[in-house]
Amino acid sequence: MKNEDSKGFYAEQADLAMEDHLIFEYRFESFVDPEEAAAHLCQEQSTAQWKRVGVDEDLRCQFGAKVIELTVIDQRETSHYPEMGNEQGPVYSCRVKIAHPHANFGPKIPNILTAACGEGAFYCPGISVIKLLDITFPDSFLDHFEGPKFGVQGIRDMLEVYDRPLFFGVVKPNIGLTPESFAELAYQSWLGGLDIAKDDEMQGDVDWSPLAERSLLMGKARRKAEEQTHEKKMYLANITDEADRLLELHDMCVKNGANALMVNAMTVGLSSIRMLRRHTQVPLVAHFDMIAPFTRVPYYGIDSNVIITLQRMVGFDSIIFPGLGARMRTSDQEVLENVEECLKPAGNLKPCLPVPAGSQWAATTLDIHKTLKTIDFGIVPGRGVFEHPMGPKGGAASLRQAWDAFKKGVTLEEYGKTYKELKTAIEAFG
Amino acid sequence: MKNEDSKGFYAEQADLAMEDHLIFEYRFESFVDPEEAAAHLCQEQSTAQWKRVGVDEDLRCQFGAKVIELTVIDQRETSHYPEMGNEQGPVYSCRVKIAHPHANFGPKIPNILTAACGEGAFYCPGISVIKLLDITFPDSFLDHFEGPKFGVQGIRDMLEVYDRPLFFGVVKPNIGLTPESFAELAYQSWLGGLDIAKDDEMQGDVDWSPLAERSLLMGKARRKAEEQTHEKKMYLANITDEADRLLELHDMCVKNGANALMVNAMTVGLSSIRMLRRHTQVPLVAHFDMIAPFTRVPYYGIDSNVIITLQRMVGFDSIIFPGLGARMRTSDQEVLENVEECLKPAGNLKPCLPVPAGSQWAATTLDIHKTLKTIDFGIVPGRGVFEHPMGPKGGAASLRQAWDAFKKGVTLEEYGKTYKELKTAIEAFG
Repeated sequence: MKNEDSKGFYAEQADLAMEDHLIFEYRFESFVDPEEAAAHLCQEQSTAQWKRVGVDEDLRCQFGAKVIELTVIDQRETSHYPEMGNEQGPVYSCRVKIAHPHANFGPKIPNILTAACGEGAFYCPGISVIKLLDITFPDSFLDHFEGPKFGVQGIRDMLEVYDRPLFFGVVKPNIGLTPESFAELAYQSWLGGLDIAKDDEMQGDVDWSPLAERSLLMGKARRKAEEQTHEKKMYLANITDEADRLLELHDMCVKNGANALMVNAMTVGLSSIRMLRRHTQVPLVAHFDMIAPFTRVPYYGIDSNVIITLQRMVGFDSIIFPGLGARMRTSDQEVLENVEECLKPAGNLKPCLPVPAGSQWAATTLDIHKTLKTIDFGIVPGRGVFEHPMGPKGGAASLRQAWDAFKKGVTLEEYGKTYKELKTAIEAFG
Repeated sequence: MKNEDSKGFYAEQADLAMEDHLIFEYRFESFVDPEEAAAHLCQEQSTAQWKRVGVDEDLRCQFGAKVIELTVIDQRETSHYPEMGNEQGPVYSCRVKIAHPHANFGPKIPNILTAACGEGAFYCPGISVIKLLDITFPDSFLDHFEGPKFGVQGIRDMLEVYDRPLFFGVVKPNIGLTPESFAELAYQSWLGGLDIAKDDEMQGDVDWSPLAERSLLMGKARRKAEEQTHEKKMYLANITDEADRLLELHDMCVKNGANALMVNAMTVGLSSIRMLRRHTQVPLVAHFDMIAPFTRVPYYGIDSNVIITLQRMVGFDSIIFPGLGARMRTSDQEVLENVEECLKPAGNLKPCLPVPAGSQWAATTLDIHKTLKTIDFGIVPGRGVFEHPMGPKGGAASLRQAWDAFKKGVTLEEYGKTYKELKTAIEAFG
């Protein structure tokens, strides 16, 4: 690109009507002059060719994406991933903020994704390695999105639990149980104190456990547990399936007694969730399958924050994502940012309940609470409840006991002397 | 995992009913004994807990994913991406084939993706770096998928072109033109010899060019061009939009005269494409936005072949993907594999037309043909047609002239002496 052409893709933020723009922030490595690379990034994602042959016009002014901030962080001898470029020589590590006129695509998930992480961003001349770090949306743009129907408050109202984190549990064995056996395990876990018994992300509508049957038995078990415990309970049914079955599965599961629904968001597509959101009568919960492949590489892909934000925008009331601890290989900082993304003010969107996940048991609640400094989160053990040596009732009880110990200022070991489920959990999982 | 537990996740391929399994092939790096890591990979993606507490059972036999082949390729001092693991010490680079019982999820895209690239695969103990290389489907499983409705043959029948590659062109300027100006450019390109004039991937249903109006004008322009050239033409309309608008946009565009539809597949979700496929009256074409973020990193994510296969399964008649040449940073081998994936026998699925893309002009067709050794492909220039100094009519003509030169065994330079559009193209883009 000629130098005078590059200038058409630069602007002062103060000169732009920022309500009319999304800000895409990238970190990239370029083998060419960073200013030229950043201009290319704008060109390729917006007006690749800005005038017709033989016509004196310039479409960049109204339609071009514009660099509003460019910082060269570092000059390195090679790219972080040298196999990904065929260029030699020094690379510039840069951060760039691009103001992209949102009229180019409108308030639609697939078209936002095309602009921010389509061909333009990922096949840009001079740039071999790039990660989309953030998208900033003006409130007026967010207003087009329904967001969570229930949110944190709505889920708490359904459960009538306001003073502690929420206890999810993934019924295990996750694969292979009959609906009867499955519902019995869930029932036991609810009796023990679980708030939300859920299907595993791998357990959809399958021949060995049809959702029609499973949701019916789970609905009955839930109501029975509610009567016996005088607590409200949730059955979170996994309706992950082809896009054109989501509404039908919603209707069936809700009728049968599921009072929350899970979808493995990226495997179905965020846009389908938006469709489901407009229809749903119960809270929607996201599971994080197929997100790691594009978020976990440090210098390439898309930051997990972006996906959390989009999941909230399309209407998830709760988002399960990789949580604290070595098991999930995710930094505490990333987890904290993801939690913040769920809960922070964002136009008129309700906050959604963060559920940082991964190999949890009774004591995990306290660790997470200590790090997050809020009670607005869920934990979601699997084996920590369902492989508890006293069974799921004991496993679920141990979760509640650990929190009670914390509230009373007693150590878990001390509290375990009175409560054998907690003591057993410490011995099995501690 | 205990050693005797690991064994439950191994099997001889000969002992399994392979019709009942998909084969997931991964390359991974582990900090622990590869056999243990591979067993974990099976466990986490299938029966994470395979018995209830207090019940003597083993769900692994029927429901467990099983290692059927494990090869340690290399032992390395550090992982390829050391920032992605917190472990120290030597790592084993491995390839593994896992037979996963498909009854665990069924013939559904989101549930296949959950099994193959969900939490189980990407958050497996001992494995920091992993890439899904391939999925092998038994023909009986593929039979559940409709695949391309038209395929290569169907598209050729519509265009009545059987003896050469197909010439797509992305109308440019892509962003900012009125529908009238846009249709005029397309019309000129059709007159020049283009087969398929298409919307850019960034150009959806937007206020400055509503699809209702654009498709109507493009339909008229197409029919006019067909009358004048006595050739069949296609208008490929980009209906990328929220999932619940796809069918409505299909109906409108087809009624107005679009005779092929493009969707940026991953931004909407492959499952929504399957829904569209069941409804469509015209060929469906995929564009590759949001695929690079999880396919381009050499040792992490998902191989592009897998996504090509899935796009064919859900029903795309043609797939646009990163093509040959330095511009797209994709190896010739990967492009060749992607082409092969489109065209190879796969149960009853029709072959779909590969369109390897990226900064093309007249001469590109010959380069691609030389490498692919087939005429069953499309090229998809943008500026190579629409920034041609003689305008889109000249640009399109230059594509046809280059192919004619090749068929006659004449060099482009020689042919350009007679055909000024080709000569001008060589001067502008050569």
